[in-house]
Amino acid sequence: MAHKVKFPQYKKEVEVADNSDLLSAVIKAGIEIRATCAGQGTCGACKVQVLSGPEGYFASPSPWISKDEKKAGYVLACQTAVLGDLTVEIPQDTKLEKIQAVGADREDFEDTENIPGTTGQPEKTSFTCQPLARKIYINIPEPTLKDTTPDFERLERELSAKTGISDFNINLPLLRALSRFIRQSNWEVTAGIAEFNSDFEIIQLEAGNTSKNAYGLALDIGTTTVVVHLIDLNTGQITASKGTYNLQMSFGEDVITRIMYAQEKDGLEKLTKAIHDTVNSLIHAVVSENKIFNHDILCIQASGNTSMTHLFLGINPEYIRKEPYIPSVNLPTTVYACELGIKINPKGIISCVPGVASYVGGDITAGVLACGMQDSAETSLLIDLGTNGEIALGNSDWIVSAACSAGPAFEGVGIKSGTRAVDGAIQEIEISADKKQVKYETINNKKPRGICGTGLIDIPAELLRKGIITRDGKFNGEKVSPRIRRNEDGELEFVVVYAPETQSGKDIVITESDIANIIRSKGAIFLGIQVLLQEMGLKFENIGKIYISGGFGTYLDVEKAIMIGLLPDLPRNSFQFIGNSSLTGAKICLLSKQAREKAKETAGKMTYIELSVNPKFMNEYTSTLFLPHTDINLFPSVKNQLK
Amino acid sequence: MAHKVKFPQYKKEVEVADNSDLLSAVIKAGIEIRATCAGQGTCGACKVQVLSGPEGYFASPSPWISKDEKKAGYVLACQTAVLGDLTVEIPQDTKLEKIQAVGADREDFEDTENIPGTTGQPEKTSFTCQPLARKIYINIPEPTLKDTTPDFERLERELSAKTGISDFNINLPLLRALSRFIRQSNWEVTAGIAEFNSDFEIIQLEAGNTSKNAYGLALDIGTTTVVVHLIDLNTGQITASKGTYNLQMSFGEDVITRIMYAQEKDGLEKLTKAIHDTVNSLIHAVVSENKIFNHDILCIQASGNTSMTHLFLGINPEYIRKEPYIPSVNLPTTVYACELGIKINPKGIISCVPGVASYVGGDITAGVLACGMQDSAETSLLIDLGTNGEIALGNSDWIVSAACSAGPAFEGVGIKSGTRAVDGAIQEIEISADKKQVKYETINNKKPRGICGTGLIDIPAELLRKGIITRDGKFNGEKVSPRIRRNEDGELEFVVVYAPETQSGKDIVITESDIANIIRSKGAIFLGIQVLLQEMGLKFENIGKIYISGGFGTYLDVEKAIMIGLLPDLPRNSFQFIGNSSLTGAKICLLSKQAREKAKETAGKMTYIELSVNPKFMNEYTSTLFLPHTDINLFPSVKNQLK
Repeated sequence: MAHKVKFPQYKKEVEVADNSDLLSAVIKAGIEIRATCAGQGTCGACKVQVLSGPEGYFASPSPWISKDEKKAGYVLACQTAVLGDLTVEIPQDTKLEKIQAVGADREDFEDTENIPGTTGQPEKTSFTCQPLARKIYINIPEPTLKDTTPDFERLERELSAKTGISDFNINLPLLRALSRFIRQSNWEVTAGIAEFNSDFEIIQLEAGNTSKNAYGLALDIGTTTVVVHLIDLNTGQITASKGTYNLQMSFGEDVITRIMYAQEKDGLEKLTKAIHDTVNSLIHAVVSENKIFNHDILCIQASGNTSMTHLFLGINPEYIRKEPYIPSVNLPTTVYACELGIKINPKGIISCVPGVASYVGGDITAGVLACGMQDSAETSLLIDLGTNGEIALGNSDWIVSAACSAGPAFEGVGIKSGTRAVDGAIQEIEISADKKQVKYETINNKKPRGICGTGLIDIPAELLRKGIITRDGKFNGEKVSPRIRRNEDGELEFVVVYAPETQSGKDIVITESDIANIIRSKGAIFLGIQVLLQEMGLKFENIGKIYISGGFGTYLDVEKAIMIGLLPDLPRNSFQFIGNSSLTGAKICLLSKQAREKAKETAGKMTYIELSVNPKFMNEYTSTLFLPHTDINLFPSVKNQLK
Repeated sequence: MAHKVKFPQYKKEVEVADNSDLLSAVIKAGIEIRATCAGQGTCGACKVQVLSGPEGYFASPSPWISKDEKKAGYVLACQTAVLGDLTVEIPQDTKLEKIQAVGADREDFEDTENIPGTTGQPEKTSFTCQPLARKIYINIPEPTLKDTTPDFERLERELSAKTGISDFNINLPLLRALSRFIRQSNWEVTAGIAEFNSDFEIIQLEAGNTSKNAYGLALDIGTTTVVVHLIDLNTGQITASKGTYNLQMSFGEDVITRIMYAQEKDGLEKLTKAIHDTVNSLIHAVVSENKIFNHDILCIQASGNTSMTHLFLGINPEYIRKEPYIPSVNLPTTVYACELGIKINPKGIISCVPGVASYVGGDITAGVLACGMQDSAETSLLIDLGTNGEIALGNSDWIVSAACSAGPAFEGVGIKSGTRAVDGAIQEIEISADKKQVKYETINNKKPRGICGTGLIDIPAELLRKGIITRDGKFNGEKVSPRIRRNEDGELEFVVVYAPETQSGKDIVITESDIANIIRSKGAIFLGIQVLLQEMGLKFENIGKIYISGGFGTYLDVEKAIMIGLLPDLPRNSFQFIGNSSLTGAKICLLSKQAREKAKETAGKMTYIELSVNPKFMNEYTSTLFLPHTDINLFPSVKNQLK
């Protein structure tokens, strides 16, 4: 027996089997909602409201649903069995917002490498342009009795003359079609050629000169967001950019939850389909908005962390999670788009930037390439502030890297009023001298809906500077500000924005546990940097440049980040924000063979330090759980301010 | 409306649509018959007998069916429409005999390179062994926290250590399965690796050590016969050999007829399926007789003329036939067995020996490699006596080649009593001094059924030596032997064997037009040799070695071949028979990477001379239409004998 589930907000209706869970119905309807714990009922993110009365469903009791909510029909979708026809409303907080490619709202990615507000440009290595694929127009001399070179070798001869590449592979169907095709085209054809692993392959032939219509995609597969650049392979220019949520979000917000989900029945297939659907929706968007044809996209250079790369290729990531944490592959084989069902030219190729280890993936290799660290004599530090907090330290001789297990706090996850960097997210606050008033700034100046990563650095710094919290992250007593109160859990919290001003009509607060959470995250990253320095026998002052990447970094206030001890207390002009360096690195690799070779070489020479088994990391962790640090002498400028 | 057609000899019955042609019914039943002209009604080869009365069919009148035959129900299958249920008998002469891989009946291919009766071994170049594919057993060190190399790179590392090959490709499905598989196999696996174009690919993984079960096939795709060696890739030894007719024979006996057939609706598909069916039947035979598994055959090195190679790969050969005679490809891409439906390991690879031009194919490159001509300072000549008569002349500095358009006379085609080298084929005759008696030898001493290639050289030579014919190939009057008579066409013919002694109960004869036909064939080859010599400014005495290949060559009497002017009058120890050199060359390439590279290099440096537009070939052709030649001084030893 099947039931109908209606979603009037979306004008959608789906049929599901009796006793299915409601989350599956939501997913089936193609509605993107939050489901952080992948259906385990533990995160409370998938809260929805059943409008049609309690007779059509059974909801397991949940600590996330208050009595009043229960009466109003609120349920966790993943904990609710569908027993009859239902009408369901998705609350604002539960929805995954559109866009969300961090930074996309501001820059539209026209100029990702030149993020405004950065203190300078990364030292760019200059790479020669030889894209992953391109189109070559050739006018082939017709054969004669004196020149009987076969059709394929004749085509190859002309292509070699134009490209300097001596040997081309060709797939059998194209070889079969070749002779008639080039004659029907009067010996004027455009060949699509692509670099497949270390070879070159003719992937397409078109009649006449179509060489101007040749596109590639640089693709950043983030755990949370997925972003593409559509790039004109003739000019190397970005034609369009798009970002969206990774549809895998419905199966868990963090990498580990997804790896575990992949072990369930059809879990891997669903996760792989979700990322393919995500990428295809982005491709659909750029293709239709720019009026180009899918088959004119000849290649994709993808970049992502190791788990995302595995799931994108349909490779089970299970051993990434199990000690000793082994990926299936660091440098995956090139694949054809049709092997993954990615809707570009079916014989278009997909290459992934090589990774280093289970928790330092191709996104970090791409980041290193984007900042040029591997070509500089000076030692630099790259900090990628994503879910995990990966760091790389090095120069042209060596690079060491680590994943800091920083957790997703800076993405707003696990924070009571946390949110992603969406419209209305609080990025910055200022507390009045009397500690009664709060001025805040939100993304796009929309009504506040929560605190995003930049705000989560800013708020503790401001609270500390104003003496509202102490260096251990605790409130300096309840009386110091009228905004401090004890909440229903008996915990102290600071009200940033009162309910009447907010989108949800609820107070936006920061709790003591939120601050503890942020301290743990910043501590993990700071300690990771210390461990890498120690491994190499270096000190902070040996670092010439600090590159900060991640969409997060775009709006980061260095002063505040140093104040909470996230970043080391170094000259402010050492810091440089490089935006989405995974995407930038992917774009560089898409356009330059030299860069692709450099990426392989760099990934090969990067040493991975497993922090979870590093004694210093284990022993000194607690010393980082202060603002900015137990040893305040590590932060002389903060020490001055707090005097 | 459908009709049933029964073939009681084969216990087969098929249903065909009303008004279908009977040849299609025969093919549908899987019965192999001769159909030289591919259904045009011109060759008379597909003669069958309808046993069930004239009411069920309509046969177009044919010069090949006598009145008596018509009464007895004889029809040309291709010219007969099926109008009712039929019972059909296939006469002995119409059948394609089993085996027929020339030489297979004698040697069972145990030792193709050492054909008995040859005057010595070819000067073999020694090639280092590195087969096209092989199996490597590896015991992979398990990963630890100190050695976190990913699974694929770990596998690659061990394979590199064992093979010296640094990079391996892997297909996506295998990469997806890799991590679980190697753990389930307790880190002990056998990898099947193959050379795919210029790369190496892991095509298979098996648990434990299965490395001893690794086979490859050397495959000679002849226009008429197809032969395989099953080769143990560990030892390089031939495990088994099989030959059979090319099932394409039902669509025409010669290459040109088949190319034309390929232009008809579904023609290419049928021809390609026919050769695939042929190869699969050979594989089935060697696999079942030797109790091995299809998936343990990892690779095929195929060799054939350019048209056969095209059809095997499903490439339309149409421009091979049209001036300026252009193949689609000389060096085809490596393909997976599954792309062609060839029943070895589906990811097993198929590589074809590269060809030189439309009428000098990979079989000739293989032949050059087999005789070692390309590595010898001395100039040698290779004569491949197949349907076309291809020749190559050269040394380590240069090689020139040509196709002589000799026609299929030496294959018994177009000769009144001609047959292939099957049981009962006459190979040799001796005529008594009184010219009344004929002693003959047949293959396997079976009752004579016709004259095969060796006999067609032997008989004119013997007739000439005994003065029964003159040097212009005409009978020396009707009275010179009682065996000379004028046949129903008013033509003179010599009875080799009278009806009572023959298989068919009909006289076996050689007619004046048969002799003219043979003279044209031998003349084309001899003149081809002259043209190549002239192109290089050389004379016959500059040729150090003459290698004769083709199944035909196995029993060839050099004395007689010189007598009729097929071979030049050179010291008898210059001649060497090298058997099926296409197959031998394929085997060498299967086993040695060095040989495969040499084959590419050799094919690349071989110059093709198009005889059909060569002035000498056009002008001097008539001078070759004598026995042995108009200018008998070119044949001093024959001049002596004929004195």
